[in-house]
Amino acid sequence: MTKSFSAEIIAVGTELLLGQIANTNAKWLSEKLALLGIHVYTHVVVGDNLERVEQAFRQAERRSDIVLVTGGLGPTDDDLTREAFQRISHLEMEEYSPAMKKIESYFERSKTKMTPNNRKQARVFKGSHVLNNQAGMAPGMIVHYNEKIWIFLPGVPREMKRLATDGVFPYLQQQTGKKDKIQSLVLKFIGIGESALEDAIQDLIQAQSNPTIAPLAQNDGVVIRLTVKADSDERANTLLKAAKEKILERVGIYYYGENDDTLEQQVIQLLKEKQLTIAAAESLTGGMFASKLISVSGASNVVQGGIVSYHANVKQKVLGVSKETIEKEGTVSKACASEMAAKVREKLDADIGISFTGVAGPNEEEGNPVGTVYIALHTISGKKQVFHYEFMGDRSTIRHRATLKGLEILFQYLKTV
Amino acid sequence: MTKSFSAEIIAVGTELLLGQIANTNAKWLSEKLALLGIHVYTHVVVGDNLERVEQAFRQAERRSDIVLVTGGLGPTDDDLTREAFQRISHLEMEEYSPAMKKIESYFERSKTKMTPNNRKQARVFKGSHVLNNQAGMAPGMIVHYNEKIWIFLPGVPREMKRLATDGVFPYLQQQTGKKDKIQSLVLKFIGIGESALEDAIQDLIQAQSNPTIAPLAQNDGVVIRLTVKADSDERANTLLKAAKEKILERVGIYYYGENDDTLEQQVIQLLKEKQLTIAAAESLTGGMFASKLISVSGASNVVQGGIVSYHANVKQKVLGVSKETIEKEGTVSKACASEMAAKVREKLDADIGISFTGVAGPNEEEGNPVGTVYIALHTISGKKQVFHYEFMGDRSTIRHRATLKGLEILFQYLKTV
Repeated sequence: MTKSFSAEIIAVGTELLLGQIANTNAKWLSEKLALLGIHVYTHVVVGDNLERVEQAFRQAERRSDIVLVTGGLGPTDDDLTREAFQRISHLEMEEYSPAMKKIESYFERSKTKMTPNNRKQARVFKGSHVLNNQAGMAPGMIVHYNEKIWIFLPGVPREMKRLATDGVFPYLQQQTGKKDKIQSLVLKFIGIGESALEDAIQDLIQAQSNPTIAPLAQNDGVVIRLTVKADSDERANTLLKAAKEKILERVGIYYYGENDDTLEQQVIQLLKEKQLTIAAAESLTGGMFASKLISVSGASNVVQGGIVSYHANVKQKVLGVSKETIEKEGTVSKACASEMAAKVREKLDADIGISFTGVAGPNEEEGNPVGTVYIALHTISGKKQVFHYEFMGDRSTIRHRATLKGLEILFQYLKTV
Repeated sequence: MTKSFSAEIIAVGTELLLGQIANTNAKWLSEKLALLGIHVYTHVVVGDNLERVEQAFRQAERRSDIVLVTGGLGPTDDDLTREAFQRISHLEMEEYSPAMKKIESYFERSKTKMTPNNRKQARVFKGSHVLNNQAGMAPGMIVHYNEKIWIFLPGVPREMKRLATDGVFPYLQQQTGKKDKIQSLVLKFIGIGESALEDAIQDLIQAQSNPTIAPLAQNDGVVIRLTVKADSDERANTLLKAAKEKILERVGIYYYGENDDTLEQQVIQLLKEKQLTIAAAESLTGGMFASKLISVSGASNVVQGGIVSYHANVKQKVLGVSKETIEKEGTVSKACASEMAAKVREKLDADIGISFTGVAGPNEEEGNPVGTVYIALHTISGKKQVFHYEFMGDRSTIRHRATLKGLEILFQYLKTV
């Protein structure tokens, strides 16, 4: 049986009405529900006020089959989602013992005193389908009431996303019994701009409606989103695969992964495949590059570590850059970058050394304007390269761009060895 | 005459319900309206569907004094805001000639053909206060109808913000007759949880209505937002200052700054004041701690740098942790953390050495469960401390918590020297 469901997302929290945060939860949930073929017709945000939350719930009950509520499940007096739904449903509540144990153990381990309020977080509606919250305290709940499906999720985005992905979406897919599968595939590119990418595949975008092809610029490169509709997973996959192949024929050289793949994951993967180790010497990035690599689980097999040679003394005394280079060429120079990469590779006994030196701002240094960055690559096999960039932006942007560029250089290098 | 107005923000646009964009317009407007003393009680998002937009408008009319509508004023058939409001108000429309001239001149200059739809954008309600759109085509409107104020703004954030700033806020300030200034002040705390903080100042929160006192958990600690209403800036500041003092008497030990202050800024500031330098040895955090410090401009005066000793070999050969410690105690141990801090301080010639070692996951290491973290502090003056934590969460959360805890330890230490 296939039925068309209408859904509504209610966010509870005065911080949203004060404009302290945007309702990104509703955006994220809507995007995912659309892929399940569930139509979201309304978003509502309401403050931490019992009467108004109740009123929002009553309106939702009249017009929607599925009501997703985010927020208001925490420990404080302002968290009123449970109380408001109880006013409508008169469902009894009970303590969910896995959540209670977790709360107790947290307070025991952190040696802080548990206040009575904290017990509240473990309370769930009797007979509800409880969603165990691995990333936080308050469990989520799915409640069938009056032929409607009510879904309660924490407001913290990380917790909400985890519970929705693991518990809510599989559950809804089963309930809605949709036969037409909507699938999407995101292709990720680095080293090419949005308009150049769009130019390269313009005819494909226009000729193609299933899957649709939509390029989109993001912070860490450009992505192409393919969205396909088909009567089976198999058929959807075949269509997506064919479109992907056509696109990669044109711009495959810039492609690094799909969906949730990150460039740092791909770099770590390539290092593992090629059995190469790496070490980084960082000045303006200050550890950001090493930290990105180490964010990938399994990095320990290929990342030796690094030296954050922020002060010139550390470049010289700890890393071993020559006094001559620093005095004659300066710390922001091709020569210094090159020596940094060579030395960190030697000292940390790695196959590849990479280095970053430059001017993050706000002030120029040694006569170099803000945004000047040198990145060098030295390998045990004798390859030596230094790249020079002039990045735009503030201190944070320049440091992030340098880090991303380092990943791109490494990725392109590793593909060729 | 001063009256308390309730406001509601309705965003019209299917793209919001598909999750293509977040409703950042509502966030921005809410924040500004709060400062005008206008309470926003509801946000609604509705798609490009005449019946549903009309329904949303009817609900808004019943509950709100001021209704701000963003989006749905464009040239396409999907832009239905005018039509929906006409169904309710039966107000006549007319062409607003400055807008029409602008549209005509645009099409003339760009040498593209104007479709009849484009004329639609220039249509406004008779008798409305028209807001000339300098950044786009469709003008905004302020309409008094049935003792309510309706405000129609384009959905493009740049256009919306311009019209709101130039036209809407001055108008509303006049209408609401508010002489009162609304000011807010955010106090930031680290090392105390939301519920403990709330417990400590519960009586103040309840006794106090001007300023209001609202605690809020955030990723990097807890904040308290004070919002005050007063007839002068001076009076507002006096009230905020008094409330701040009362709060800090109770929980000042956890206080680190206000508004946009960050913990890393405060740490750098204290290092500068005390004329102390720092170096970091990082294992599981992998450079994240050094990078946080170096994100602050001016860090170069006090941050020497660090060693990312991710691999055990680097801990031993580059950093100089003894072989005995690593073999007997393991790299995830109190002893190893302590040596790491001592060695990095010595090697990088700093006044303070801080170190991080632990298990970020996903797998346990050397028999230590995921989340085990040791942070050590060594100073040139002979202070030695090692802290042991068991953090919850995934790899990324554990690494971020360790970094934040390091900043907290350093901040608390620096306050005492």
